[in-house]
Amino acid sequence: MNFETALASRAAEIGGFLSERLADLPEGPVTEAMRYSLDGGKRLRGFLVIESAAIFGIPSAHAMPAAGAIEALHAYSLVHDDLPAMDDDDTRRGKPTVHVKWDEATAILTGDALQSLAFELVAQGDLPAARKLDLSHSLALRAGARGMVRGQALDIAAESAGQALDQAAIEELQACKTGALIVWSCAAGPLMAGEDTQPLCRYADALGLAFQIADDILDIEGDAATVGKAVGKDADRGKATFVSLLGLDGAKRRARTLVDDACDALSPFGAAAEPLRGAARFVVSRQS
Amino acid sequence: MNFETALASRAAEIGGFLSERLADLPEGPVTEAMRYSLDGGKRLRGFLVIESAAIFGIPSAHAMPAAGAIEALHAYSLVHDDLPAMDDDDTRRGKPTVHVKWDEATAILTGDALQSLAFELVAQGDLPAARKLDLSHSLALRAGARGMVRGQALDIAAESAGQALDQAAIEELQACKTGALIVWSCAAGPLMAGEDTQPLCRYADALGLAFQIADDILDIEGDAATVGKAVGKDADRGKATFVSLLGLDGAKRRARTLVDDACDALSPFGAAAEPLRGAARFVVSRQS
Repeated sequence: MNFETALASRAAEIGGFLSERLADLPEGPVTEAMRYSLDGGKRLRGFLVIESAAIFGIPSAHAMPAAGAIEALHAYSLVHDDLPAMDDDDTRRGKPTVHVKWDEATAILTGDALQSLAFELVAQGDLPAARKLDLSHSLALRAGARGMVRGQALDIAAESAGQALDQAAIEELQACKTGALIVWSCAAGPLMAGEDTQPLCRYADALGLAFQIADDILDIEGDAATVGKAVGKDADRGKATFVSLLGLDGAKRRARTLVDDACDALSPFGAAAEPLRGAARFVVSRQS
Repeated sequence: MNFETALASRAAEIGGFLSERLADLPEGPVTEAMRYSLDGGKRLRGFLVIESAAIFGIPSAHAMPAAGAIEALHAYSLVHDDLPAMDDDDTRRGKPTVHVKWDEATAILTGDALQSLAFELVAQGDLPAARKLDLSHSLALRAGARGMVRGQALDIAAESAGQALDQAAIEELQACKTGALIVWSCAAGPLMAGEDTQPLCRYADALGLAFQIADDILDIEGDAATVGKAVGKDADRGKATFVSLLGLDGAKRRARTLVDDACDALSPFGAAAEPLRGAARFVVSRQS
């Protein structure tokens, strides 16, 4: 099975799990918008959770609530990031964003409820309580003012100051903004197993950065229909990106080096880590 | 020690705990706004956590992280509720709201980070992992699309439809919007002890409703300087409240009956529940 087929198959499983968990929510616009924003997407983070767990012999059914949790948390961050007061985006995954399809209040509440849902899910399923608590605590740390929210705040501050960030500053920003959830996803496996998270965190640091560089490249080279959101926006805004700093070829070279670094970090795990190696190659070759 | 002195003393302890936990966050507008929005307030929910735990012999130091967590979650809900797209309030606790003092993006991110902080805190401290996981899971359920967020969504929907709700609908809305976190706060004690949450949930249901009725009365009778936020707003908007439904005297009578119901639910606990009885009497007599 090639990587994209494996990813699509996991995405479908995670989607099925999420639909089931959302089935008993009271009907209303927030529940509808939660379903809408959880629908589609590659579910790369959920895939990373399941495959990082598989390395430690944890069955996918046991890892599934954590995979659903990270997808819910990621969906919340997209819904809030798209708001007019934030990145002001009208399209996401080729569909109108939540605040466009509903309204701003619904988008704020939907994001809020998706964050709660993430912590609801991560506390469920067949793992020892102490492991689930570790997952939950670590998710809170990665999501909050030290992690993803900090990355988003740095991004907005840089943009509103019209500040051109240097490479170190962009790498820090991205390590928080995109990296925090990717690191959690990869650390989830060893956390579930009570094992050292270090090697997978090293993998995830490289993967997260490669992912972001690839995003910047897509913003230049991609076409909006395939990418599913507006492209060329960062360049139009004069925002410093890896491409503006390193040039298109330099950015591609850096991304390839990071893929090698990511794969190197997986060497202790042999063949069991092959799906994660596939993920690293995939993030820099994807067209959307 | 009278009730208000006891409440103020617990509020100071919880404030001290939160300041300490926020001390190591990276500096920036979101961290500043988190501190700002956690500053002040009666910390009634945190008090309920500590006193419901005390009934089961749990020391306040062990209950403190959960008390801090509910205050963080409550603060997040206020910051988001005050946003222009939601209740559009400029003043809170006698100070400018976060989106006025900073901006909307900062307010959205601050609320988001405060929610993460709540789940970070609830996973900490000297309780068995299984108990902390119960607290966390239950908090996620009460906060999300079944609980507080649902209440807020119902409130916004009713207002934008110009719909006059009947008493049953308002009670349902308030049970979600205000009640969900109050119920969690009171259930926290038995959850920490692994005991039946039923009697304290009964107490909390009555308390939460009494609290909301008292709020509606304050919106009519209070003055803005004492209450610390705009008053008369609900009446000006033609919003259905307990006062508009029951009249001022009827609302006061209903609140007093609810205080009696709340105290009745505490009868199994004898003198150990005296602080919670004080809380019930307090919520209907408070001036702010």
